[in-house]
Amino acid sequence: MQRPVSRPPVSEYLICPDPADPRLTVRVSGIDQAGAPVTTSVTVERALTIFLNAQEIVTAMTIGDYPEYLALGYLLNQHMLRSDDLVTGIDYDEDLALVVVRTERVTNYEQKLKKKVQTSGCAQGTVFGDLMEVVEGASLPKTVLRTSWLYALTSKINTTPSLYLEAGAIHGCVLAHQDRPLVYMEDVGRHNAVDKIAGWMFQERVSPDDKIFYTTGRLTSEMVIKTVRMGIPVLISRSGFTAWGVELARKAGLTLIGRARGKRFVALSGEERIVFDQDLAHVEEESAKHRRKAAVHED
Amino acid sequence: MQRPVSRPPVSEYLICPDPADPRLTVRVSGIDQAGAPVTTSVTVERALTIFLNAQEIVTAMTIGDYPEYLALGYLLNQHMLRSDDLVTGIDYDEDLALVVVRTERVTNYEQKLKKKVQTSGCAQGTVFGDLMEVVEGASLPKTVLRTSWLYALTSKINTTPSLYLEAGAIHGCVLAHQDRPLVYMEDVGRHNAVDKIAGWMFQERVSPDDKIFYTTGRLTSEMVIKTVRMGIPVLISRSGFTAWGVELARKAGLTLIGRARGKRFVALSGEERIVFDQDLAHVEEESAKHRRKAAVHED
Repeated sequence: MQRPVSRPPVSEYLICPDPADPRLTVRVSGIDQAGAPVTTSVTVERALTIFLNAQEIVTAMTIGDYPEYLALGYLLNQHMLRSDDLVTGIDYDEDLALVVVRTERVTNYEQKLKKKVQTSGCAQGTVFGDLMEVVEGASLPKTVLRTSWLYALTSKINTTPSLYLEAGAIHGCVLAHQDRPLVYMEDVGRHNAVDKIAGWMFQERVSPDDKIFYTTGRLTSEMVIKTVRMGIPVLISRSGFTAWGVELARKAGLTLIGRARGKRFVALSGEERIVFDQDLAHVEEESAKHRRKAAVHED
Repeated sequence: MQRPVSRPPVSEYLICPDPADPRLTVRVSGIDQAGAPVTTSVTVERALTIFLNAQEIVTAMTIGDYPEYLALGYLLNQHMLRSDDLVTGIDYDEDLALVVVRTERVTNYEQKLKKKVQTSGCAQGTVFGDLMEVVEGASLPKTVLRTSWLYALTSKINTTPSLYLEAGAIHGCVLAHQDRPLVYMEDVGRHNAVDKIAGWMFQERVSPDDKIFYTTGRLTSEMVIKTVRMGIPVLISRSGFTAWGVELARKAGLTLIGRARGKRFVALSGEERIVFDQDLAHVEEESAKHRRKAAVHED
Protein backbone atom coordinates (compact mmCIF):
# COMPACT_ATOMS: atom_id res chain seq x y z
CA MET A 1 0.00 0.00 0.00
CA GLN A 2 1.39 3.40 -1.00
CA ARG A 3 1.88 5.92 1.77
CA PRO A 4 2.33 9.65 1.24
CA VAL A 5 5.98 10.71 1.57
CA SER A 6 5.00 13.45 3.97
CA ARG A 7 4.66 10.84 6.70
CA PRO A 8 8.13 9.38 6.95
CA PRO A 9 7.57 7.24 10.07
CA VAL A 10 4.65 5.34 8.59
CA SER A 11 6.69 3.86 5.76
CA GLU A 12 8.84 1.96 8.27
CA TYR A 13 5.96 0.07 9.87
CA LEU A 14 4.79 -3.39 8.92
CA ILE A 15 1.51 -2.60 10.73
CA CYS A 16 0.46 0.82 11.95
CA PRO A 17 -2.80 2.39 13.08
CA ASP A 18 -5.35 3.37 10.46
CA PRO A 19 -7.16 6.31 12.09
CA ALA A 20 -9.20 6.77 8.89
CA ASP A 21 -10.79 3.31 9.23
CA PRO A 22 -14.50 4.13 9.61
CA ARG A 23 -15.08 1.07 11.81
CA LEU A 24 -12.79 2.35 14.56
CA THR A 25 -14.32 5.73 15.43
CA VAL A 26 -17.75 7.31 15.28
CA ARG A 27 -18.79 10.95 15.20
CA VAL A 28 -20.92 11.93 18.19
CA SER A 29 -22.76 15.19 18.84
CA GLY A 30 -22.95 17.07 22.11
CA ILE A 31 -22.26 20.49 23.53
CA ASP A 32 -19.12 22.25 24.68
CA GLN A 33 -18.33 24.45 27.70
CA ALA A 34 -20.14 27.39 26.10
CA GLY A 35 -23.26 25.32 25.47
CA ALA A 36 -22.51 25.34 21.73
CA PRO A 37 -23.17 22.21 19.66
CA VAL A 38 -20.03 20.18 18.87
CA THR A 39 -19.35 17.00 16.96
CA THR A 40 -16.36 14.93 18.03
CA SER A 41 -14.70 11.59 17.17
CA VAL A 42 -14.92 8.88 19.80
CA THR A 43 -13.30 5.47 19.81
CA VAL A 44 -15.46 2.42 19.23
CA GLU A 45 -15.43 -0.47 21.68
CA ARG A 46 -17.16 -3.72 20.80
CA ALA A 47 -17.45 -7.19 22.26
CA LEU A 48 -15.42 -10.06 20.80
CA THR A 49 -15.81 -13.57 22.18
CA ILE A 50 -12.72 -15.77 22.00
CA PHE A 51 -13.03 -19.54 21.72
CA LEU A 52 -10.24 -22.06 22.07
CA ASN A 53 -11.43 -25.07 20.09
CA ALA A 54 -14.95 -25.79 21.37
CA GLN A 55 -14.49 -23.89 24.64
CA GLU A 56 -15.67 -20.31 25.09
CA ILE A 57 -12.89 -18.50 26.96
CA VAL A 58 -13.70 -14.83 27.33
CA THR A 59 -15.54 -11.87 25.87
CA ALA A 60 -13.17 -8.96 25.43
CA MET A 61 -14.04 -5.33 24.72
CA THR A 62 -11.91 -4.19 21.80
CA ILE A 63 -11.80 -1.68 18.95
CA GLY A 64 -12.15 -4.73 16.71
CA ASP A 65 -9.18 -4.55 14.34
CA TYR A 66 -6.97 -7.67 14.07
CA PRO A 67 -9.30 -10.03 15.96
CA GLU A 68 -7.19 -13.04 14.97
CA TYR A 69 -4.01 -11.57 16.48
CA LEU A 70 -5.94 -10.50 19.58
CA ALA A 71 -7.31 -14.03 20.09
CA LEU A 72 -3.93 -15.69 19.58
CA GLY A 73 -2.11 -13.20 21.80
CA TYR A 74 -4.72 -13.40 24.54
CA LEU A 75 -4.49 -17.19 24.67
CA LEU A 76 -0.67 -17.07 24.64
CA ASN A 77 -0.45 -14.45 27.36
CA GLN A 78 -2.95 -16.36 29.49
CA HIS A 79 -0.81 -19.49 29.08
CA MET A 80 -3.69 -21.29 27.39
CA LEU A 81 -1.65 -21.65 24.23
CA ARG A 82 2.04 -22.63 24.24
CA SER A 83 4.60 -21.09 21.93
CA ASP A 84 5.12 -24.51 20.34
CA ASP A 85 1.44 -25.22 19.84
CA LEU A 86 0.31 -25.93 16.29
CA VAL A 87 -2.61 -23.67 15.41
CA THR A 88 -4.63 -25.45 12.76
CA GLY A 89 -7.03 -22.60 12.05
CA ILE A 90 -8.42 -19.26 13.19
CA ASP A 91 -11.97 -18.42 12.20
CA TYR A 92 -13.33 -14.94 12.70
CA ASP A 93 -17.04 -14.26 12.30
CA GLU A 94 -17.68 -10.52 12.24
CA ASP A 95 -21.47 -10.80 12.47
CA LEU A 96 -21.38 -13.09 15.48
CA ALA A 97 -18.44 -11.14 16.95
CA LEU A 98 -16.48 -14.26 17.72
CA VAL A 99 -13.15 -15.77 16.87
CA VAL A 100 -12.24 -19.44 17.21
CA VAL A 101 -8.63 -20.60 17.56
CA ARG A 102 -8.16 -24.28 16.73
CA THR A 103 -5.16 -26.25 17.92
CA GLU A 104 -3.79 -29.71 17.33
CA ARG A 105 -2.96 -30.28 21.00
CA VAL A 106 -5.76 -30.64 23.51
CA THR A 107 -5.34 -27.60 25.74
CA ASN A 108 -5.47 -27.44 29.52
CA TYR A 109 -7.36 -24.16 29.78
CA GLU A 110 -9.89 -25.57 32.24
CA GLN A 111 -7.39 -25.65 35.09
CA LYS A 112 -5.97 -22.30 34.01
CA LEU A 113 -9.42 -20.74 34.26
CA LYS A 114 -9.82 -21.87 37.84
CA LYS A 115 -7.84 -19.28 39.68
CA LYS A 116 -7.51 -15.77 38.38
CA VAL A 117 -5.83 -12.76 39.80
CA GLN A 118 -7.10 -9.37 38.91
CA THR A 119 -3.94 -7.46 38.16
CA SER A 120 -3.78 -3.70 38.26
CA GLY A 121 -4.13 -1.48 35.26
CA CYS A 122 -6.42 -2.75 32.55
CA ALA A 123 -6.16 -6.22 33.95
CA GLN A 124 -7.51 -9.25 32.25
CA GLY A 125 -6.52 -11.41 35.12
CA THR A 126 -3.39 -13.50 35.18
CA VAL A 127 -2.84 -16.93 36.59
CA PHE A 128 -1.22 -15.96 39.85
CA GLY A 129 0.74 -19.09 40.57
CA ASP A 130 2.52 -18.73 37.25
CA LEU A 131 3.63 -15.14 37.76
CA MET A 132 6.76 -15.89 39.71
CA GLU A 133 7.63 -18.88 37.55
CA VAL A 134 7.55 -16.69 34.47
CA VAL A 135 9.79 -14.08 36.02
CA GLU A 136 12.18 -16.33 37.92
CA GLY A 137 12.58 -18.71 35.03
CA ALA A 138 13.27 -15.84 32.63
CA SER A 139 16.49 -15.80 30.63
CA LEU A 140 16.27 -12.64 28.61
CA PRO A 141 19.07 -11.95 26.12
CA LYS A 142 21.56 -9.25 27.14
CA THR A 143 20.53 -6.99 24.28
CA VAL A 144 21.84 -3.43 24.51
CA LEU A 145 19.65 -0.37 24.07
CA ARG A 146 21.25 2.62 22.39
CA THR A 147 19.79 5.93 23.50
CA SER A 148 19.90 7.05 19.86
CA TRP A 149 17.38 4.28 19.11
CA LEU A 150 15.21 5.28 22.03
CA TYR A 151 14.95 8.92 20.95
CA ALA A 152 14.42 8.04 17.29
CA LEU A 153 11.67 5.57 18.23
CA THR A 154 9.75 7.83 20.58
CA SER A 155 9.92 10.68 18.08
CA LYS A 156 8.57 8.43 15.29
CA ILE A 157 5.84 6.95 17.48
CA ASN A 158 4.71 10.41 18.63
CA THR A 159 4.34 11.62 15.05
CA THR A 160 2.64 8.51 13.66
CA PRO A 161 -1.01 9.19 12.80
CA SER A 162 -3.06 7.21 15.30
CA LEU A 163 -6.47 6.81 16.86
CA TYR A 164 -4.89 8.29 19.96
CA LEU A 165 -4.19 11.54 18.16
CA GLU A 166 -7.58 11.33 16.41
CA ALA A 167 -10.00 10.37 19.18
CA GLY A 168 -8.05 9.60 22.37
CA ALA A 169 -9.31 7.16 25.01
CA ILE A 170 -6.99 4.49 23.70
CA HIS A 171 -3.73 2.71 24.45
CA GLY A 172 -0.83 2.13 22.13
CA CYS A 173 1.96 -0.47 22.05
CA VAL A 174 4.81 -0.70 19.58
CA LEU A 175 7.18 -3.56 18.80
CA ALA A 176 10.47 -2.17 17.51
CA HIS A 177 13.87 -3.29 16.27
CA GLN A 178 16.65 -0.82 17.09
CA ASP A 179 15.33 2.55 15.85
CA ARG A 180 12.64 1.06 13.60
CA PRO A 181 9.03 0.67 14.78
CA LEU A 182 7.63 -2.54 13.28
CA VAL A 183 4.11 -3.04 14.62
CA TYR A 184 1.99 -0.34 16.28
CA MET A 185 -1.26 -1.61 17.79
CA GLU A 186 -3.90 0.40 19.63
CA ASP A 187 -6.92 -0.65 21.66
CA VAL A 188 -9.32 0.58 24.33
CA GLY A 189 -7.68 -1.89 26.70
CA ARG A 190 -3.90 -1.77 26.89
CA HIS A 191 -3.79 -5.54 27.41
CA ASN A 192 -5.53 -5.96 24.05
CA ALA A 193 -2.87 -3.90 22.29
CA VAL A 194 -0.16 -6.04 23.90
CA ASP A 195 -2.00 -9.25 23.05
CA LYS A 196 -2.39 -8.22 19.40
CA ILE A 197 1.37 -7.76 19.16
CA ALA A 198 1.96 -11.12 20.88
CA GLY A 199 -0.43 -12.74 18.39
CA TRP A 200 1.38 -11.14 15.45
CA MET A 201 4.77 -12.32 16.74
CA PHE A 202 3.47 -15.87 17.17
CA GLN A 203 1.87 -15.97 13.74
CA GLU A 204 4.90 -14.48 11.97
CA ARG A 205 7.42 -16.47 14.05
CA VAL A 206 9.26 -13.28 15.00
CA SER A 207 12.18 -13.59 17.43
CA PRO A 208 11.86 -11.38 20.51
CA ASP A 209 15.61 -11.42 21.27
CA ASP A 210 16.58 -8.16 19.57
CA LYS A 211 13.25 -6.36 20.00
CA ILE A 212 12.14 -3.38 22.05
CA PHE A 213 8.63 -3.00 23.44
CA TYR A 214 7.11 0.46 23.82
CA THR A 215 3.85 1.22 25.62
CA THR A 216 1.90 4.39 26.35
CA GLY A 217 0.72 2.76 29.59
CA ARG A 218 2.12 2.37 33.05
CA LEU A 219 4.88 -0.07 33.94
CA THR A 220 2.85 -2.25 36.30
CA SER A 221 3.65 -5.80 37.34
CA GLU A 222 1.25 -7.01 34.67
CA MET A 223 3.01 -5.12 31.90
CA VAL A 224 6.42 -6.37 33.03
CA ILE A 225 5.22 -9.98 33.25
CA LYS A 226 3.71 -9.84 29.75
CA THR A 227 6.92 -8.43 28.29
CA VAL A 228 9.06 -11.05 30.03
CA ARG A 229 6.69 -13.77 28.93
CA MET A 230 7.00 -12.53 25.35
CA GLY A 231 10.79 -12.79 25.77
CA ILE A 232 11.47 -9.14 24.89
CA PRO A 233 14.49 -7.71 26.77
CA VAL A 234 13.64 -3.98 26.74
CA LEU A 235 10.44 -2.22 27.87
CA ILE A 236 9.96 1.54 27.44
CA SER A 237 7.03 3.71 28.50
CA ARG A 238 6.15 7.38 28.48
CA SER A 239 4.32 6.69 31.77
CA GLY A 240 5.47 5.84 35.27
CA PHE A 241 6.28 2.78 37.36
CA THR A 242 4.78 0.73 40.12
CA ALA A 243 7.07 -0.69 42.79
CA TRP A 244 6.23 -4.31 41.98
CA GLY A 245 6.78 -3.67 38.28
CA VAL A 246 10.30 -2.49 39.08
CA GLU A 247 10.96 -5.43 41.39
CA LEU A 248 9.84 -8.01 38.84
CA ALA A 249 11.83 -6.33 36.06
CA ARG A 250 14.97 -6.54 38.21
CA LYS A 251 14.33 -10.23 38.98
CA ALA A 252 13.88 -10.97 35.29
CA GLY A 253 16.80 -8.83 34.08
CA LEU A 254 14.51 -6.68 31.94
CA THR A 255 15.73 -3.22 30.92
CA LEU A 256 12.92 -0.99 32.20
CA ILE A 257 12.63 2.64 31.14
CA GLY A 258 9.80 4.94 32.16
CA ARG A 259 8.73 8.57 31.88
CA ALA A 260 10.34 8.72 28.44
CA ARG A 261 9.20 12.07 27.06
CA GLY A 262 11.26 14.45 24.98
CA LYS A 263 14.83 14.35 26.25
CA ARG A 264 13.94 12.78 29.58
CA PHE A 265 13.71 9.23 30.84
CA VAL A 266 14.36 7.18 33.98
CA ALA A 267 15.78 3.64 33.92
CA LEU A 268 15.06 1.55 37.01
CA SER A 269 16.19 -1.91 35.92
CA GLY A 270 18.80 -3.33 33.54
CA GLU A 271 20.38 0.11 33.15
CA GLU A 272 23.82 -1.48 32.61
CA ARG A 273 22.70 -2.45 29.12
CA ILE A 274 21.97 1.12 28.04
CA VAL A 275 24.53 2.66 25.68
CA PHE A 276 24.51 6.47 25.86
CA ASP A 277 25.40 7.28 22.25
CA GLN A 278 22.98 10.18 21.75
CA ASP A 279 24.07 13.81 22.10
CA LEU A 280 21.18 15.26 24.11
CA ALA A 281 21.71 18.70 22.53
CA HIS A 282 20.26 17.22 19.34
CA VAL A 283 17.12 15.72 20.90
CA GLU A 284 13.96 17.73 20.46
CA GLU A 285 11.40 18.13 23.17
CA GLU A 286 7.95 16.72 22.32
CA SER A 287 5.90 18.81 19.93
CA ALA A 288 3.23 21.02 21.44
CA LYS A 289 0.60 19.01 19.56
CA HIS A 290 1.67 15.75 21.12
CA ARG A 291 2.01 17.25 24.59
CA ARG A 292 -1.45 18.66 24.28
CA LYS A 293 -2.88 15.30 23.31
CA ALA A 294 -0.78 13.57 25.93
CA ALA A 295 -2.33 15.77 28.56
CA VAL A 296 -5.63 14.07 27.78
CA HIS A 297 -3.96 10.75 27.90
CA GLU A 298 -6.11 8.39 29.72
CA ASP A 299 -6.02 5.20 31.52
CA MET B 1 -6.36 15.59 62.08
CA GLN B 2 -5.14 19.15 61.57
CA ARG B 3 -4.39 20.22 58.02
CA PRO B 4 -2.27 23.23 57.12
CA VAL B 5 -4.38 26.21 56.08
CA SER B 6 -2.29 26.63 52.96
CA ARG B 7 -4.16 23.70 51.44
CA PRO B 8 -7.73 24.93 51.31
CA PRO B 9 -9.20 22.06 49.25
CA VAL B 10 -8.12 19.37 51.69
CA SER B 11 -10.22 20.71 54.54
CA GLU B 12 -13.40 20.03 52.57
CA TYR B 13 -12.76 16.33 52.14
CA LEU B 14 -14.06 13.56 54.37
CA ILE B 15 -11.38 11.30 52.88
CA CYS B 16 -8.50 12.43 50.70
CA PRO B 17 -5.22 10.93 49.56
CA ASP B 18 -2.32 10.80 52.00
CA PRO B 19 0.72 10.97 49.73
CA ALA B 20 2.97 11.04 52.81
CA ASP B 21 1.80 7.55 53.91
CA PRO B 22 5.01 5.51 53.78
CA ARG B 23 3.10 2.32 52.88
CA LEU B 24 1.90 3.76 49.57
CA THR B 25 5.12 4.68 47.81
CA VAL B 26 8.72 3.51 47.88
CA ARG B 27 11.92 5.26 46.84
CA VAL B 28 13.72 3.46 44.03
CA SER B 29 17.15 4.18 42.55
CA GLY B 30 18.10 4.16 38.90
CA ILE B 31 19.65 6.42 36.30
CA ASP B 32 18.35 9.28 34.18
CA GLN B 33 18.83 10.22 30.52
CA ALA B 34 22.30 11.53 31.24
CA GLY B 35 23.30 8.30 32.96
CA ALA B 36 23.29 10.09 36.33
CA PRO B 37 21.99 8.29 39.42
CA VAL B 38 18.44 9.29 40.42
CA THR B 39 16.09 8.29 43.20
CA THR B 40 12.38 8.53 42.52
CA SER B 41 9.06 7.71 44.22
CA VAL B 42 7.05 4.87 42.76
CA THR B 43 3.61 3.66 43.70
CA VAL B 44 3.25 0.41 45.60
CA GLU B 45 0.96 -2.33 44.32
CA ARG B 46 0.21 -5.32 46.50
CA ALA B 47 -2.08 -8.31 46.37
CA LEU B 48 -5.27 -8.37 48.43
CA THR B 49 -7.51 -11.43 48.41
CA ILE B 50 -11.21 -10.77 48.91
CA PHE B 51 -13.44 -13.40 50.51
CA LEU B 52 -17.23 -13.33 50.66
CA ASN B 53 -18.08 -15.44 53.70
CA ALA B 54 -16.16 -18.70 53.23
CA GLN B 55 -15.68 -18.25 49.50
CA GLU B 56 -12.48 -16.82 48.01
CA ILE B 57 -13.58 -14.42 45.28
CA VAL B 58 -10.61 -12.66 43.77
CA THR B 59 -7.08 -11.40 44.36
CA ALA B 60 -6.83 -7.74 43.44
CA MET B 61 -3.69 -5.66 42.97
CA THR B 62 -4.10 -2.49 45.00
CA ILE B 63 -2.12 0.23 46.77
CA GLY B 64 -3.59 -1.24 49.94
CA ASP B 65 -5.31 1.67 51.68
CA TYR B 66 -8.98 1.16 52.68
CA PRO B 67 -9.09 -2.63 52.07
CA GLU B 68 -12.52 -2.88 53.73
CA TYR B 69 -14.08 -0.32 51.38
CA LEU B 70 -12.38 -1.96 48.41
CA ALA B 71 -13.77 -5.38 49.32
CA LEU B 72 -17.30 -4.07 49.92
CA GLY B 73 -17.29 -1.99 46.74
CA TYR B 74 -15.86 -4.79 44.63
CA LEU B 75 -18.58 -7.20 45.78
CA LEU B 76 -21.28 -4.57 45.23
CA ASN B 77 -20.09 -3.61 41.77
CA GLN B 78 -19.80 -7.28 40.81
CA HIS B 79 -23.43 -7.82 41.96
CA MET B 80 -22.25 -10.31 44.55
CA LEU B 81 -23.57 -8.11 47.32
CA ARG B 82 -26.93 -6.33 47.13
CA SER B 83 -27.48 -2.81 48.39
CA ASP B 84 -29.93 -4.20 50.98
CA ASP B 85 -27.61 -6.94 52.19
CA LEU B 86 -26.77 -6.93 55.88
CA VAL B 87 -23.01 -7.04 56.34
CA THR B 88 -22.35 -8.68 59.70
CA GLY B 89 -18.58 -8.13 59.70
CA ILE B 90 -15.52 -7.21 57.70
CA ASP B 91 -12.19 -8.68 58.83
CA TYR B 92 -8.95 -7.44 57.36
CA ASP B 93 -5.71 -9.30 57.99
CA GLU B 94 -2.76 -7.23 56.85
CA ASP B 95 -0.17 -10.01 57.26
CA LEU B 96 -2.19 -12.50 55.24
CA ALA B 97 -3.25 -9.76 52.80
CA LEU B 98 -6.86 -10.80 52.87
CA VAL B 99 -10.20 -9.29 53.72
CA VAL B 100 -13.36 -11.25 54.54
CA VAL B 101 -16.83 -9.75 54.12
CA ARG B 102 -19.51 -11.60 56.10
CA THR B 103 -23.19 -11.32 55.24
CA GLU B 104 -26.43 -12.53 56.78
CA ARG B 105 -27.91 -13.61 53.45
CA VAL B 106 -26.42 -16.58 51.64
CA THR B 107 -25.04 -15.04 48.48
CA ASN B 108 -25.35 -16.31 44.93
CA TYR B 109 -21.84 -15.47 43.81
CA GLU B 110 -21.20 -18.93 42.39
CA GLN B 111 -23.48 -18.34 39.43
CA LYS B 112 -22.18 -14.80 39.04
CA LEU B 113 -18.64 -16.13 38.76
CA LYS B 114 -19.58 -18.40 35.91
CA LYS B 115 -19.55 -16.00 33.01
CA LYS B 116 -17.28 -13.02 32.96
CA VAL B 117 -16.74 -10.38 30.37
CA GLN B 118 -13.42 -8.66 30.20
CA THR B 119 -14.37 -5.03 29.81
CA SER B 120 -12.01 -2.46 28.43
CA GLY B 121 -9.83 -0.21 30.51
CA CYS B 122 -8.64 -1.66 33.78
CA ALA B 123 -11.32 -4.28 33.61
CA GLN B 124 -12.11 -6.61 36.42
CA GLY B 125 -14.67 -8.35 34.30
CA THR B 126 -18.34 -7.70 34.57
CA VAL B 127 -21.23 -10.07 34.34
CA PHE B 128 -22.20 -9.44 30.75
CA GLY B 129 -25.83 -10.47 30.85
CA ASP B 130 -26.48 -7.95 33.59
CA LEU B 131 -24.98 -4.95 31.78
CA MET B 132 -28.04 -4.04 29.78
CA GLU B 133 -30.37 -4.71 32.69
CA VAL B 134 -28.44 -2.25 34.83
CA VAL B 135 -28.57 0.44 32.19
CA GLU B 136 -32.07 -0.13 30.87
CA GLY B 137 -33.55 -0.45 34.31
CA ALA B 138 -31.83 2.74 35.47
CA SER B 139 -33.89 5.58 36.86
CA LEU B 140 -31.34 8.24 37.71
CA PRO B 141 -32.61 11.40 39.39
CA LYS B 142 -32.80 14.50 37.17
CA THR B 143 -30.15 16.31 39.18
CA VAL B 144 -28.78 19.45 37.56
CA LEU B 145 -25.09 20.19 37.23
CA ARG B 146 -24.05 23.82 37.54
CA THR B 147 -20.93 24.67 35.55
CA SER B 148 -19.76 26.74 38.54
CA TRP B 149 -19.65 23.49 40.54
CA LEU B 150 -17.77 21.69 37.78
CA TYR B 151 -15.03 24.33 37.55
CA ALA B 152 -14.72 24.66 41.33
CA LEU B 153 -14.46 20.86 41.68
CA THR B 154 -11.88 20.28 38.99
CA SER B 155 -9.77 23.14 40.32
CA LYS B 156 -9.89 21.72 43.85
CA ILE B 157 -9.14 18.17 42.70
CA ASN B 158 -6.19 19.34 40.61
CA THR B 159 -4.63 21.12 43.56
CA THR B 160 -5.24 18.40 46.17
CA PRO B 161 -1.99 16.72 47.24
CA SER B 162 -2.13 13.19 45.88
CA LEU B 163 -0.12 10.11 45.03
CA TYR B 164 -0.75 11.07 41.43
CA LEU B 165 1.15 14.32 41.87
CA GLU B 166 3.76 12.53 44.04
CA ALA B 167 4.51 9.34 42.13
CA GLY B 168 2.16 9.01 39.17
CA ALA B 169 1.09 5.65 37.73
CA ILE B 170 -2.21 5.86 39.54
CA HIS B 171 -5.90 6.58 39.02
CA GLY B 172 -8.09 8.92 40.97
CA CYS B 173 -11.85 9.09 41.56
CA VAL B 174 -13.76 11.68 43.55
CA LEU B 175 -17.29 11.63 44.94
CA ALA B 176 -18.62 15.17 45.21
CA HIS B 177 -21.69 17.12 46.28
CA GLN B 178 -22.21 20.31 44.27
CA ASP B 179 -18.84 22.10 44.45
CA ARG B 180 -17.54 20.11 47.41
CA PRO B 181 -15.29 17.06 46.96
CA LEU B 182 -16.20 14.49 49.64
CA VAL B 183 -14.12 11.38 49.06
CA TYR B 184 -11.01 11.18 46.88
CA MET B 185 -9.65 7.67 46.36
CA GLU B 186 -6.64 6.62 44.33
CA ASP B 187 -5.39 3.22 43.22
CA VAL B 188 -3.18 1.52 40.66
CA GLY B 189 -6.34 0.15 39.07
CA ARG B 190 -9.08 2.66 38.32
CA HIS B 191 -11.72 0.06 39.14
CA ASN B 192 -10.26 -0.21 42.64
CA ALA B 193 -10.61 3.54 43.20
CA VAL B 194 -14.25 3.34 42.06
CA ASP B 195 -14.90 0.29 44.21
CA LYS B 196 -13.45 1.98 47.31
CA ILE B 197 -15.87 4.86 46.84
CA ALA B 198 -18.77 2.43 46.32
CA GLY B 199 -17.77 0.62 49.52
CA TRP B 200 -17.62 3.89 51.46
CA MET B 201 -21.07 4.92 50.19
CA PHE B 202 -22.53 1.54 51.20
CA GLN B 203 -20.94 1.61 54.63
CA GLU B 204 -21.93 5.21 55.35
CA ARG B 205 -25.40 4.83 53.75
CA VAL B 206 -24.76 7.85 51.53
CA SER B 207 -27.45 8.75 48.99
CA PRO B 208 -26.17 8.94 45.40
CA ASP B 209 -29.05 11.14 44.19
CA ASP B 210 -27.36 14.54 44.51
CA LYS B 211 -23.79 13.37 43.95
CA ILE B 212 -21.27 13.93 41.18
CA PHE B 213 -18.63 11.36 40.24
CA TYR B 214 -15.26 12.52 38.89
CA THR B 215 -12.61 10.24 37.40
CA THR B 216 -9.17 10.79 35.90
CA GLY B 217 -9.82 7.82 33.63
CA ARG B 218 -11.60 7.29 30.36
CA LEU B 219 -15.36 7.19 29.99
CA THR B 220 -15.64 3.59 28.83
CA SER B 221 -18.74 1.40 28.98
CA GLU B 222 -17.40 -0.07 32.22
CA MET B 223 -17.06 3.32 33.89
CA VAL B 224 -20.56 4.34 32.80
CA ILE B 225 -22.10 1.08 34.00
CA LYS B 226 -20.42 1.38 37.41
CA THR B 227 -21.64 4.95 37.84
CA VAL B 228 -25.19 4.03 36.83
CA ARG B 229 -25.11 1.02 39.11
CA MET B 230 -24.02 3.28 41.97
CA GLY B 231 -27.04 5.49 41.16
CA ILE B 232 -24.99 8.66 40.62
CA PRO B 233 -26.51 10.97 37.97
CA VAL B 234 -23.41 12.90 36.81
CA LEU B 235 -20.04 11.55 35.60
CA ILE B 236 -17.13 13.87 34.78
CA SER B 237 -13.69 13.00 33.44
CA ARG B 238 -10.62 14.87 32.32
CA SER B 239 -10.16 12.09 29.76
CA GLY B 240 -12.06 11.05 26.65
CA PHE B 241 -14.98 8.85 25.64
CA THR B 242 -15.61 5.53 23.98
CA ALA B 243 -18.61 5.18 21.68
CA TRP B 244 -20.28 2.52 23.80
CA GLY B 245 -19.74 4.56 26.94
CA VAL B 246 -21.66 7.42 25.31
CA GLU B 247 -24.42 5.11 24.08
CA LEU B 248 -24.95 3.54 27.50
CA ALA B 249 -24.92 6.93 29.22
CA ARG B 250 -27.67 8.14 26.87
CA LYS B 251 -29.75 5.00 27.52
CA ALA B 252 -29.41 5.48 31.26
CA GLY B 253 -29.97 9.25 31.25
CA LEU B 254 -26.56 9.89 32.79
CA THR B 255 -25.01 13.34 32.39
CA LEU B 256 -21.65 12.52 30.81
CA ILE B 257 -18.88 15.10 30.59
CA GLY B 258 -15.41 14.40 29.24
CA ARG B 259 -12.18 16.20 28.39
CA ALA B 260 -12.80 18.56 31.33
CA ARG B 261 -9.54 20.50 31.61
CA GLY B 262 -9.21 24.16 32.44
CA LYS B 263 -12.09 26.02 30.79
CA ARG B 264 -12.91 23.25 28.35
CA PHE B 265 -15.27 20.30 28.45
CA VAL B 266 -17.53 18.29 26.15
CA ALA B 267 -20.92 16.90 27.23
CA LEU B 268 -22.19 13.97 25.16
CA SER B 269 -25.18 12.79 27.23
CA GLY B 270 -27.71 14.39 29.56
CA GLU B 271 -26.55 17.87 28.52
CA GLU B 272 -30.05 19.28 29.10
CA ARG B 273 -29.40 19.08 32.84
CA ILE B 274 -26.34 21.35 32.71
CA VAL B 275 -26.89 24.90 34.02
CA PHE B 276 -24.37 27.34 32.54
CA ASP B 277 -23.99 29.71 35.49
CA GLN B 278 -20.21 30.20 35.29
CA ASP B 279 -18.67 33.22 33.54
CA LEU B 280 -15.85 31.58 31.57
CA ALA B 281 -13.77 34.76 31.78
CA HIS B 282 -13.23 33.92 35.44
CA VAL B 283 -12.13 30.31 34.97
CA GLU B 284 -8.40 29.69 35.10
CA GLU B 285 -6.63 27.32 32.81
CA GLU B 286 -4.93 24.38 34.57
CA SER B 287 -1.72 25.24 36.36
CA ALA B 288 1.51 24.40 34.59
CA LYS B 289 2.35 21.97 37.39
CA HIS B 290 -0.82 19.98 36.90
CA ARG B 291 -0.53 20.01 33.12
CA ARG B 292 3.00 18.75 33.42
CA LYS B 293 1.95 15.89 35.64
CA ALA B 294 -1.08 15.24 33.52
CA ALA B 295 1.17 14.75 30.53
CA VAL B 296 2.57 11.71 32.33
CA HIS B 297 -0.89 10.58 33.14
CA GLU B 298 -1.12 6.96 32.52
CA ASP B 299 -3.54 4.30 31.90
